[in-house]
Amino acid sequence: MAPVTNGRFLFNEVPEGFPVPGKTTIYDASQTIDLDNADLQGGFLVKVLVLSIDPYMRGRMRHPEKKSYNAPFTIGEPLANFGVGVVLRSENSAVKPGDHLYGFYPFVQYTIQHNAQAFRVLENKENLPWSAYIGVCGMPGETAYYAWKEYAAPKKGDVVFVTTAAGPVGATVVQLAKADGLKVIASAGSDEKVAFASSIGADVAFNYKTTPTRKVLEKEGPINIYWDNVGGETLEAALDNAEKGARFIECGMISSYNTQKPYGVTNLMKIVAQELHIHGFIVGSIRDKYVDEFYSKFVQRVASGEIKYKEHLVRGLENAGEAILDVQSGKNFGKCVVVVADE
Amino acid sequence: MAPVTNGRFLFNEVPEGFPVPGKTTIYDASQTIDLDNADLQGGFLVKVLVLSIDPYMRGRMRHPEKKSYNAPFTIGEPLANFGVGVVLRSENSAVKPGDHLYGFYPFVQYTIQHNAQAFRVLENKENLPWSAYIGVCGMPGETAYYAWKEYAAPKKGDVVFVTTAAGPVGATVVQLAKADGLKVIASAGSDEKVAFASSIGADVAFNYKTTPTRKVLEKEGPINIYWDNVGGETLEAALDNAEKGARFIECGMISSYNTQKPYGVTNLMKIVAQELHIHGFIVGSIRDKYVDEFYSKFVQRVASGEIKYKEHLVRGLENAGEAILDVQSGKNFGKCVVVVADE
Repeated sequence: MAPVTNGRFLFNEVPEGFPVPGKTTIYDASQTIDLDNADLQGGFLVKVLVLSIDPYMRGRMRHPEKKSYNAPFTIGEPLANFGVGVVLRSENSAVKPGDHLYGFYPFVQYTIQHNAQAFRVLENKENLPWSAYIGVCGMPGETAYYAWKEYAAPKKGDVVFVTTAAGPVGATVVQLAKADGLKVIASAGSDEKVAFASSIGADVAFNYKTTPTRKVLEKEGPINIYWDNVGGETLEAALDNAEKGARFIECGMISSYNTQKPYGVTNLMKIVAQELHIHGFIVGSIRDKYVDEFYSKFVQRVASGEIKYKEHLVRGLENAGEAILDVQSGKNFGKCVVVVADE
Repeated sequence: MAPVTNGRFLFNEVPEGFPVPGKTTIYDASQTIDLDNADLQGGFLVKVLVLSIDPYMRGRMRHPEKKSYNAPFTIGEPLANFGVGVVLRSENSAVKPGDHLYGFYPFVQYTIQHNAQAFRVLENKENLPWSAYIGVCGMPGETAYYAWKEYAAPKKGDVVFVTTAAGPVGATVVQLAKADGLKVIASAGSDEKVAFASSIGADVAFNYKTTPTRKVLEKEGPINIYWDNVGGETLEAALDNAEKGARFIECGMISSYNTQKPYGVTNLMKIVAQELHIHGFIVGSIRDKYVDEFYSKFVQRVASGEIKYKEHLVRGLENAGEAILDVQSGKNFGKCVVVVADE
């Protein structure tokens, strides 16, 4: 077969505020690959099917001299994130053609990989769509599941406040909290997202763009657990409405990702006065303890329909820039997935 | 004996910024007490010897409608805090004349109390000055000891940053950290305080008024444990120089106590990125677990001279207002004690 185009989605420029598709990222169709004859050098050729778009990616779109917990993307190179691909050819005995691999992929249509241990072969006995494995059954679901287990310490009668409650992390937290019998207050950024949060069990769901978070928490709180994906003023409102000994699970602070001047939180004395316990985490650090039960039990709960989820599918690698911007600005409704190819 | 003056130190007005002696608090000498004949009604008469002046007291000098973790002081009534007094007469079998009682006292020269269980009879076999029992061997020492035990989780090679390192809490933390073999960075607000911090073992001690905290932490950090008595910009610098998984022990935030506009902390995303664990606490909440070993072991370490401390003695209840202001502005060098009377 003749070589085919191997499209790549490249980091082009560090954004100042929000990323700008076509400027801070660009799609490049100049490379080709001969799928039948490309030299694998002991590796395996993967056709990328779905790629995950997550809020944290904005943090990697930075100048390399700025330190953070993960490596910056390299200008001129493809972005990278979790995805699922199917093996076309393999010279590595650990994977075989037809295997579906979950792991970290460059944003390309085809890739030759060498480290089979970096990927998880998805058996998918549950017959879920592959996209589910990068959302509720992938890193975002893991994020919710692991940190809830590790830090929530739910007690009877507790009230939990969950931000970004229609997203893959937040919606999963809402459902885990309800399964633990708690009262759940959920915020999201559109009326349809709010309706979804209610449909999955949130006792109180509200659109933070039209109803002040502070007012809702004053009425429905105080809160014992806060799941923070937002930071800034929302965190400030949560601090002011925290019950004694509340646990704050700090998963992300998207309100600060696209600005040079993050909001200054002034009421941190509440940490002392209310004896709060605040835990920041990166999902990989608490993975080992819970990963087996995640794949053996939690994925089943998704497959059975007990745990519900929403997806926001964007077709075509060339549209990844818009997908990234959608996630940063909250335009997506549900887990954002770039569908690179069908099988 | 004829009645004697029973001086009282009263809360007079809520301060807007720093407390103003003679305005926000006043000394009142209009009351008398007949020490021989005053009706005890089953209680016991105590002559107050020493009263503790602590940073947190500023939080009680507030409008009653403003909620916080402790009760506001009442306008027109004496302030109150930890102290030591000696029993003059008693109709309660649990205490006898000559007993020295540690507990919570109104700011008066003489007081009739009824609840013996609210006080601890100090045997003082160690022959420490009574003032020590409201400083390094009282609430501030307890604060340092309990929270260090509960939240520091010190590991070999850890670096700890301690603020207000010449005060009774900070200086105790410095010495506990050194006893655990850690590298200690200590900040204080004058050169003589810095010299004291060095003398009790701090590896790096600096005057934060002349040397930027951020620069010291960049050079001597990153830090694994942060003991915060300050908040604001100092907390911000600590966040920017925290090692992965660092523990932040939030004991107080004096930088915010005397202002209507506390500093806004902008880099809270470090909590996520560095996977920090931040614990606020009130000493009473973690007391039960450690109080016996505190009095059985820690007080011995003080008496033996292993644990050192500084005191800032202010003579006369009428001078409590200046003492309070000194503590809020950092003018005191060492634990601030109002000496109400000698025995």
